[in-house]
Order: sequence, then structure tokens, then C-alpha cells
Amino acid sequence: MIRIGIVGASGYTGVELARLLCSCPDVKLKVATSRQYKGKKLADVYPSLAGMVDIVCEDLQMEKLAERADLFFTAVPHQTAMAIVPDLLRVGKKVVDLSADFRIHDAAVYEKWYQKHTAQEYLAKAIYGLPELHRQQIAAAQLVANPGCYPTSVILGVAPLLQAGVVEPETLIVDSKSGASGAGRLAQTGTLFCEVTEGFKAYKVAAHRHTPEMEQEISALCNKSVAISFTPHLLPMSRGILSTIYATMSKSMTDDEVYELYRNFYKNEPFVRLCEPGAFPATQFVRGSNYCDLGFKFDSRTGRIVVLAAIDNLVKGAAGQAVQNMNLMCGLPETRGLLGVPLFP
Amino acid sequence: MIRIGIVGASGYTGVELARLLCSCPDVKLKVATSRQYKGKKLADVYPSLAGMVDIVCEDLQMEKLAERADLFFTAVPHQTAMAIVPDLLRVGKKVVDLSADFRIHDAAVYEKWYQKHTAQEYLAKAIYGLPELHRQQIAAAQLVANPGCYPTSVILGVAPLLQAGVVEPETLIVDSKSGASGAGRLAQTGTLFCEVTEGFKAYKVAAHRHTPEMEQEISALCNKSVAISFTPHLLPMSRGILSTIYATMSKSMTDDEVYELYRNFYKNEPFVRLCEPGAFPATQFVRGSNYCDLGFKFDSRTGRIVVLAAIDNLVKGAAGQAVQNMNLMCGLPETRGLLGVPLFP
Amino acid sequence: MIRIGIVGASGYTGVELARLLCSCPDVKLKVATSRQYKGKKLADVYPSLAGMVDIVCEDLQMEKLAERADLFFTAVPHQTAMAIVPDLLRVGKKVVDLSADFRIHDAAVYEKWYQKHTAQEYLAKAIYGLPELHRQQIAAAQLVANPGCYPTSVILGVAPLLQAGVVEPETLIVDSKSGASGAGRLAQTGTLFCEVTEGFKAYKVAAHRHTPEMEQEISALCNKSVAISFTPHLLPMSRGILSTIYATMSKSMTDDEVYELYRNFYKNEPFVRLCEPGAFPATQFVRGSNYCDLGFKFDSRTGRIVVLAAIDNLVKGAAGQAVQNMNLMCGLPETRGLLGVPLFP
Amino acid sequence: MIRIGIVGASGYTGVELARLLCSCPDVKLKVATSRQYKGKKLADVYPSLAGMVDIVCEDLQMEKLAERADLFFTAVPHQTAMAIVPDLLRVGKKVVDLSADFRIHDAAVYEKWYQKHTAQEYLAKAIYGLPELHRQQIAAAQLVANPGCYPTSVILGVAPLLQAGVVEPETLIVDSKSGASGAGRLAQTGTLFCEVTEGFKAYKVAAHRHTPEMEQEISALCNKSVAISFTPHLLPMSRGILSTIYATMSKSMTDDEVYELYRNFYKNEPFVRLCEPGAFPATQFVRGSNYCDLGFKFDSRTGRIVVLAAIDNLVKGAAGQAVQNMNLMCGLPETRGLLGVPLFP
Repeated sequence: MIRIGIVGASGYTGVELARLLCSCPDVKLKVATSRQYKGKKLADVYPSLAGMVDIVCEDLQMEKLAERADLFFTAVPHQTAMAIVPDLLRVGKKVVDLSADFRIHDAAVYEKWYQKHTAQEYLAKAIYGLPELHRQQIAAAQLVANPGCYPTSVILGVAPLLQAGVVEPETLIVDSKSGASGAGRLAQTGTLFCEVTEGFKAYKVAAHRHTPEMEQEISALCNKSVAISFTPHLLPMSRGILSTIYATMSKSMTDDEVYELYRNFYKNEPFVRLCEPGAFPATQFVRGSNYCDLGFKFDSRTGRIVVLAAIDNLVKGAAGQAVQNMNLMCGLPETRGLLGVPLFP
Repeated sequence: MIRIGIVGASGYTGVELARLLCSCPDVKLKVATSRQYKGKKLADVYPSLAGMVDIVCEDLQMEKLAERADLFFTAVPHQTAMAIVPDLLRVGKKVVDLSADFRIHDAAVYEKWYQKHTAQEYLAKAIYGLPELHRQQIAAAQLVANPGCYPTSVILGVAPLLQAGVVEPETLIVDSKSGASGAGRLAQTGTLFCEVTEGFKAYKVAAHRHTPEMEQEISALCNKSVAISFTPHLLPMSRGILSTIYATMSKSMTDDEVYELYRNFYKNEPFVRLCEPGAFPATQFVRGSNYCDLGFKFDSRTGRIVVLAAIDNLVKGAAGQAVQNMNLMCGLPETRGLLGVPLFP
Repeated sequence: MIRIGIVGASGYTGVELARLLCSCPDVKLKVATSRQYKGKKLADVYPSLAGMVDIVCEDLQMEKLAERADLFFTAVPHQTAMAIVPDLLRVGKKVVDLSADFRIHDAAVYEKWYQKHTAQEYLAKAIYGLPELHRQQIAAAQLVANPGCYPTSVILGVAPLLQAGVVEPETLIVDSKSGASGAGRLAQTGTLFCEVTEGFKAYKVAAHRHTPEMEQEISALCNKSVAISFTPHLLPMSRGILSTIYATMSKSMTDDEVYELYRNFYKNEPFVRLCEPGAFPATQFVRGSNYCDLGFKFDSRTGRIVVLAAIDNLVKGAAGQAVQNMNLMCGLPETRGLLGVPLFP
Repeated sequence: MIRIGIVGASGYTGVELARLLCSCPDVKLKVATSRQYKGKKLADVYPSLAGMVDIVCEDLQMEKLAERADLFFTAVPHQTAMAIVPDLLRVGKKVVDLSADFRIHDAAVYEKWYQKHTAQEYLAKAIYGLPELHRQQIAAAQLVANPGCYPTSVILGVAPLLQAGVVEPETLIVDSKSGASGAGRLAQTGTLFCEVTEGFKAYKVAAHRHTPEMEQEISALCNKSVAISFTPHLLPMSRGILSTIYATMSKSMTDDEVYELYRNFYKNEPFVRLCEPGAFPATQFVRGSNYCDLGFKFDSRTGRIVVLAAIDNLVKGAAGQAVQNMNLMCGLPETRGLLGVPLFP
């Protein structure tokens, strides 16, 4: 039995980790930290967990924490993670970090988009935790940087095209839309029900911090440094991301040929589902699941391909992918605990 | 391996059955009928099922159907069910009928609220499939009438009070609210997104067909014939029922005493969760799960108790309870396939 | 031109007042106070107002305030209102107070449900601002206590029955459901989008502070002291209240007779619309308007009548009724600025 | 008093026209046709109109219709409109057609995207009803083709850039998102509440019929034939369109310079509001109003500008713009009846 700790258990990502771990027979949640709710049962914070999760939240105390679990999920904000993760690594723990702190290999890039990085010596050790691209390295890693929600959808959406060299990378435009759970559970006016419902808007236009993360992986896939346009939007719903991605094709292809390209690229992937030509993904069909559904359309009028990628931002975009990484790091079957059918309607 | 058939697989209850059965290792879905989608893969109708359910919808052909499965879920409208179920029973199949056709023991009552009953000889055989009240009979039954969604929440909500004789049954008032999935997937103006969102209304006031079903079980619990007031409402959401139930107490009790009464009544029940005094259930905390969450408050100012019961109408209110009944009828562990954690947020 | 001030302009009630006043040709918004947003244009806080409202929020400074407006809306929390309103009254200003502080005539009752009342000498001066019951007194008042949102729907729903003496008042049960805008714009976890959407729950069961307000007006209508059962619920939508009200009839009446009773009672009321027998109100059909839509059904099986009352909680339940009161107090046509058609879909 | 007829009054556009006309003192709705609801009061179909609109729906009978109104709104599907409009024009009526039938000047283009055009002789007479671009022609027109909802947002969004020649037109990519009311009130599975809520998807990717309409106006603005990429999406909300538009700048400009460009272009426009640099529009802030809110951001990293345009699809995207056109055609003040403040929250 592998003992698990969640640092930052009371956010939406934390509770989703707790939910998913209930379906993992090989692991046991032993530690859940939450400054805000210390001493309170996690199931009292989230009554959805009642009768299934009986752990009590505790304050983070590093010295005592480490010996009580073998692998830690750190589900805390960036900047906080870089202060905690090194201590866990030093005492030999495995860590899946869900913050942004170890995703960017280049400290200078990180510092340009975020703030000063105080644990740069661990950047080289961290593996970017997208199993579809880095499975073998993840399996051998002590520290996995769990990808951001938007980047997960985007990178999976364009990887086959970039690797095959059939699109012009510098024409990439990413228009992404996310449900409100991506903003977390912080009490703030902007994500109140009445501000979000029956409304839609863009935010952080051309300025969102997930941009360099996408550019890093995209640049690696096409072996050249690429800058992309990225616009995130806030959807009046709870879960789900749909990314609509535009790129100019460098060669003409039929939709069937593109489909074949994707099918080959993802043929052994348990969590990528392809829509057949003419069909497109929808976030409601991945709700609560670890799937990434992909569709596309080549527009011969403009020479552009449009790729559509749908995930549940809390699952494949966060907690589910983290469990997938945990499975790989611990030598467990990769899909363990992650085969729940999407909840529709 | 128990072979399962779903008659009427393409409605919301049908797809929810298909979803839940994926988690049941002892059974296998072998037949799915749908007039509207015959020849089409169920996963093409509901892309949520892609990669997990590969069954193709077929037209209902009784003669060939029976030998291909051992137990059938009939998820068709009332009046249709009574034409299908007897044929399945005659060839020895087990049936969980999700329509209203076999819920009412008294044919005259059925005919008053619905229409003529053409299979009355089976009414006496049918067991009302609420395991918390009729577990043993269900285990021995060939035909189980799966309860209505509203009645499930209401009967579970008031059973402890009625059995203990601490409320005046004739004062029962039931104010229920349901998500739109209860109206099914029929294309109709009234359940279009724009008609339902950001709106709330009552419907079939004092005239809903679930009334006699509740009265039957309530009357049995208190050994007298009781008429109740019942008002259903349509919520601008997809899943979930909350029933708010009012009754005058026949004796004064503290909230702690009432809690103890409920705790005793449900102490061995895997799918009933109690809120402690001062807390109340919410539909979002049972979403996607088979739980019924109960809370209550005694109001000494008026002498009335208010009981609150929350379920997911498609799970404990339909498909989940049907699987629970299947488990009982087939000698499987009652909770098999039903322990998924509610999806929140 | 009547000069208007809004104290507490940046809450949802404040912005709704600002919206409605744009349609009032006889008045002009001259002062808007907001501690949180002082120095900021109200239209920057609420971009919906851009191009139509150019007022800048300021801090509350009583001494300078009074001479700049003739009538004030105080849209601040209870307890804050009782500290501000007396100063405005003393310098001769008219006040429509949207808090609870001057609604309850009996200070002891107020103090039992709220907290200590420090301006009791003004309770006798305050008129309960429900024009359908107290129009003449409102027209002559200096201080009007604008009714709570739930009480508005409930009192309008039952007034004809109580005045005619055809129901037993002590059997009154009120089951109300409100959109999330009723909780205001305070940043708090409980009203975040993800906590509210796709969910439904009761709150403050048998303990909501609007109870004594309803009991005061109900008791006055039937000339006896009445205690009612009241359960508020939170709907996953922004605007709208539907109250479902149950009472035992003291005499048997047909639905047509009840309709006639209501029609007579409200025959000159511009903002009460009746559903014909068999039809019921829905909140989406009053959205954005000052209407209260009423429907009902007598249930001969139980001897109870069910009344349904729908309002927009921010309009007839708050800002719209406040403008209606302003019109009466200022000798303007009562419907001025309030005849916008409900926004559906 | 100008007498108005609505052909196709029972769809969402029809009821929105009826709502808006209530605020127009110079006109009077005299005729409302609806095949589905003939003989029924429009206010019974849409109870939101109760007490404000007392017109009865009637079947379309051209011969009797024409003499009862002076100006007609035809709110019927394309192909139906081209059969009705010519008859109205021949008897001298003014027509604002809300279908697509008279928007495309080139019959060949129309027939490529739609179907055969049987009233081509009227295409040259029809004025494309976007007042911000064609005000004078509209004022003199007998037939105005009211623009599509998506095109309205997109053309207003890019017109200043195209006219100034500062973007490369062939790089235009339009990613639009619309609320479900754009799909109309037809009973169909795809727009049922449960299919739309908590979900998001693209549809008609690179194949939507509004594409040629945008290309026509965009090409005219930049004096060259342009093909654009256009992807529409379905939002889980009722009203509102946000279009996110990408284009490569042909010269480098600061956000302040771009703002100045827009400000000049729209300085006399009553229904276009600009967000200052750093702010972006949101559909909830134009809800129920005739505004188009615009924002933008130049991304120096990629050399692209991102423009955001928000409208209410039923108002500026349909009925409101139609009333604006009516005002122009009838010599009334252009803003008459259209100055209602957006409804937020």
C-alpha cells in the first residue's frame, strides 16, 4: 500500500484528488493539509466525500509530514510550492507538483512570467508530466511537474501536427475557454455565481501565464522556438476546457489523412479519444473523466486547420493527470482509478 | 457473468444505466434497444461512452431478445412497459422496470392517475424496489418496480418518522424540486435550454402522478390511508432532487432525539447519509452518486418538523437504484458498482 | 427634478436602483456612496451602466450629503441603516430604507431576530412599503421601510385569502426559493459559481429573519397573531423568487371562485398579474420587471390551497418596489420608470 | 402612429421585437403572425408579455395583411422570407427582413452557402442593415436586410482596423461564441437544457452560413476579396455573443493608438461602447441592450491584435438592430425605444 499525502487538500484540485484516490486500491490517503480548515474533517468541508473519506485536515508541518506518506501531491499556489517541494524531495519523497513552479525548464522564462524562482536547482530534475509525451521519464522521476489545464488540452491537440511537420508553428493561435472551477475556491467577487452565470468574457488576453508552458512544449515538438497567441475565456459552467486551435497547414491534407495521422500518434493512448471527421468534441462528454477528446477540420478555403480539444480541467487538466503520473511513478497500471465513465447528462 | 439487456437504452436513464454498469465486474451489457437509434452505436448517441461501451442499438424484437440476456432493465414510458414486461417474465427473465406500470399495487388507483392497466395480473408479483424498505422481497423477486425519483426522496425522508409514529401523517406536505433531466430527452419546447435556465416554476400542482406512489408507501408505513399535498418544481439544473417535507409532530422532540431516530433507522444502510443537526443536504453533494442525504429541523414555534432529502434523480432516483435492485436480485453485493464518489464541484 | 441619493450604491440592489432610475424622467441620481469603491465611477464597477450612468462613488459623509439630494435610498445592511437613516430624517430628507431595520413595528420582535435596535423612536414613523397594502400611508410617509424580497412574494400571495377569511392562518407553510443575487455581492465561498451551479439546497430552515416580517403583515391581515413555517432555498440562478404557499381552506371554493377573489383584490394593481386557473407563474417571466405573478390551485383531496408567487427579487423584491415607493412619496405616477417588459428568454 | 406587423412573431426574435416595441411611443404593433399559435394571444405563448402586449397571433394571409400595417418585420427562416418579402414590397410596405435571404448581394454566393434564390431581383434593392456602416442608405431603403448576429459583432469589431488599413485582412480568424437563444425555439434534442448546460462545443466548424456575410462586408471595407476562418461555438447560457478576432497588424501600434482609432471611428455611435486599454467586454454587461461593447489588445510578441466584441444576440444581433433600422427608415430618432440599461446581474 502506497501512502499518499496531499498538501493543500481543501481547494478544488485537492478534493478532486481525494475523490479519485477513493478508486485507487493500491494507495491510501494518509495526510491532508489545509491551513484554512485544520482540525476539520475534509468531508465536512466537502460533504460530497461523506462516508468515503474520513481524513482530518491538518496544518502543514514538514518535519512530521514526510515519514507518514511516500508520495505527495502539492496542490498549492505557485511560489508556495517551490518552498515546500525541495524539503520533500530531500527526504526521498516522490512529488507530483500541481503548481506552475517546476513546469518551465528555463528559470529566466519562469521569472519573466511569474516571479523570482528560489529553487532553480530542482528545475532540471523535474519532468513535465504529460504522459502522452514523456511517459518514460515520468516513470523514472522523483519530481513531476503536473501540466497546467490549458496546456494539457493544447499540447495534446497539436502534438501530432507539429511532430509530423505539417503545420507552420508560428501561425498557431489558441483560443481557450474554461469553466469557473479553474479559478479555484478563493472567495472573490469575480467568480461569484451572479458574475459568471449567463455571461462570457476573455481575460488576461495575450498575457496568461500558461503561454510559456505551451511554447516550451510546442517548441520542443517542432525543434524551433515558437511564440503563440493565446486567449483564455471564462465559461458560465463549472468544469471543462475547450481549446480551439488554428494553424496554417504547410501541406494540403484531407480530413481522412489528418485523422490517420492522429490515430497513429495516439493509437496506444488510453485517455485520448478521437472524433471521426465531421464530429467535434464537447466538454460535457468528458465531464468527471480523464479523457481528452480531439476533433479537427481542415478548411481548404483558408488553408488552415482547426483543432478542437476538450478536457475536464479538474481531471485530465489537474487531479486526474496527477494520479496518472502517480501511477507511472509508482509502477502501477497507468489507468488505475481513472476509468470512471464521464457523467452525462 | 450475468448478461444484461436494456430496453429503451437511449434515454437519459438508459445511458446512466450503461454508465453505471461499466463499473459492475459481474455483469455485461449484451442488449440495448432503441427504436430511434437502431443500428447506431450507443456511444455515437452519447459520446461520453466512447471507448467504454461498444454496444449497438437495435430494434426491440422480443422473440430474439430473451435468450441473449438474463436480466432486463425496462427504461421505457409507462403503458409501453406493461406491454413488454410480461413477455420477459414469461420466459423466465428477471426484470427491473423503471416505468410506473408496476409500482402501484392497486389497479384502480393506477387507472385513476394513469390509464387502463392491461397487465394487472403482474401487479401482485411486482415488488416496490426501495431496498431500504423492501430488501428481502427484492432479493427474491422476479419483477421489481423501480421507484419514481420524487417518491424515493420523499419516502426515505419520512419513513423513520412514520414508523416511529411521531408525526401526524395527514399533515404531510411535500414540496419537491427536480433538475431537468427528470423530464427525459424528448425534444420539446418546455425543456429547451432557454426556457429552463435562469428560471423556476411549479408544474402539475396537486396533480403529479408520483402522488399515489408516495401515498401507497406512506400509508403502509403508518398503517392508515393518507393523502398528501405534493408540488413538484423544475430547477434550472440538470441533475438532482431536493424534497422539502413538512409535518406536524405528534410529540415534541429535540433535534438530537430526531437524529438518533434516523440514525437507528438507517444505521446499516450504505446509501443513506445523515446531516448532523444544524446541517442540511444539497443536491450538488450527491451528484452522480447513489446517495440519499437527509437533514431535518424541528420548529418549536409551529410544532412542525421540516425534513430535507437530496438525491441524484438519475442515480438513486432511477438507474443507480435499479442497479442496486439488480445486485439484490442476483445475489451480488448490494453496493457493487455504486460506490463512485459524488462529483463536486 | 427630484434629486436622489443612494447610500450603498455598489451592491446588487444599488446598481439595480441606478439602472431603474435611468428610466425615471422626473428624478436625477446625484449622490452614490460606496466605501469600497470611493473615487471610482459606478460604471467602472458595473460596466453595464457605461454610457448611461456617469456618477462617481464617494465615501459617506453625512453632513455634506443631505443638501445634495431630496430623497435617499439606503441600500446598506441592517444595523448600518439604523445609524444613518435618523440623520437623514432629521434634516428633512425622505428615505426609502431597503434594510430590515424599520420593517418590524415591535422593537422586541426585531431584537429577538436581529440585534439591539438603536433607533426605536423611528419605528412608529416608518411605513411598511408594500404599496398594494399601504399605498396611502406610503404617499404621506417620510420614511418607508422597503419590504424584504421573500415577504413581498408571500404577502402578495396570501393577502386576498387572509382578508377574505377563507384559509386557516395557522396552517400557513411557506416554501420559498431565491436566486443567488439575494445573497448580495459579498465575496464569500458559499456563493461562488461552482458552489451554486447545478445545485440546490435549503438554508436557515425555520430560522430566517424574514419570518417575523411576514408574520407581522399576515397577522394584521387576519387580525390574530400567527406563526408560520418558512423555509428559504438557494436556486442555481441569478434573479427570481418563487414562493410556494400552502394553507388549509376554511371553506371549499372552486378555482374560479378563488380567481375571482384575487381578481377583485388586485383589480387596480398595476404590478400584480394573475395566472388563469390551470396556469402557474414562473420566475423567468418576471425577470427584470416589477411584476408579481400569482397562481394557485385548490386541492380537494387534502382541502389545501397552493399559492404560487413569482417576483424578481432585485426589482419587486427590492429596487423596483423602492422606486414604486419613491414615486408614491414624491407624488409621481406610481408606475413611472417601472414599465419595462420582462426579459425573456 | 406607424403601424407595425411581425411575420413570425412567436420565435425568440419575434417576442424580443414585441418587447422592444412596447418602449417605442411612435409605433404600434398591429399584426403578429404565427402558424403554430394562430388564434392564441402572444402573451399566452410568452407570459412575460402579459399585461403589456394584447395582440392575438394569426395565420399569414398576405392579401389582408398589407393594409393593416406600414412596416413589417419578417422574422422567419431563410427561404421562407424570400417568398413573403416581395409581396410586401410590391404593395409599398417597408420591410426589415431578419432572415439571411437579402443580406448577400451576390446571388451566386448566396446559392453556394444556402440554396436557390427565387427573388434575386430584390437583392440589389436590399440594404445591409448595419447602421454604423450604412446609415444613410438604410434611411432611404424600402427593404433592409437585418444582419446576422455573429456578423454584427465581427464587422463592428474589425471595421476601424480594416478601414484604416492597419491589419492584414487575409490573416483574420474569428472565434465566436453564442448563447443558445441563437438556435431559436424549435423543439430539438440538441438545445435541450441537459444537452447545453455545463457544456461547451464548436459547431459547423469552417462551414457556418454567416461566413459569406462577414466576408462581403469585410471585403468591402478593405477593397479586396477576403476569406476568413470562422468557428462558432455554443455557450451554456441564453443570451450573448462574444467574438474573439485575431489579425496580424501591418504596422506596429500602441494600445493607446488603437484606442484612438476606434474612438474616432465610433465617436458618434450611440450603441458602440469602447473598453479602455486593459479592460475587455463581457456579454453580461450588454444583456438585454442594443450595445456592442468592444475591447482589444495588441500582442507585440506575435504581432497580432486581438479584438473582442460583445453583443446581446437577440438585441443588437437581431431585434434591437431591426428596431434601430426601423427608426432610421421611418425618420424617427435612431435610439428610440433602445436605451434600456443592460440587465446585470
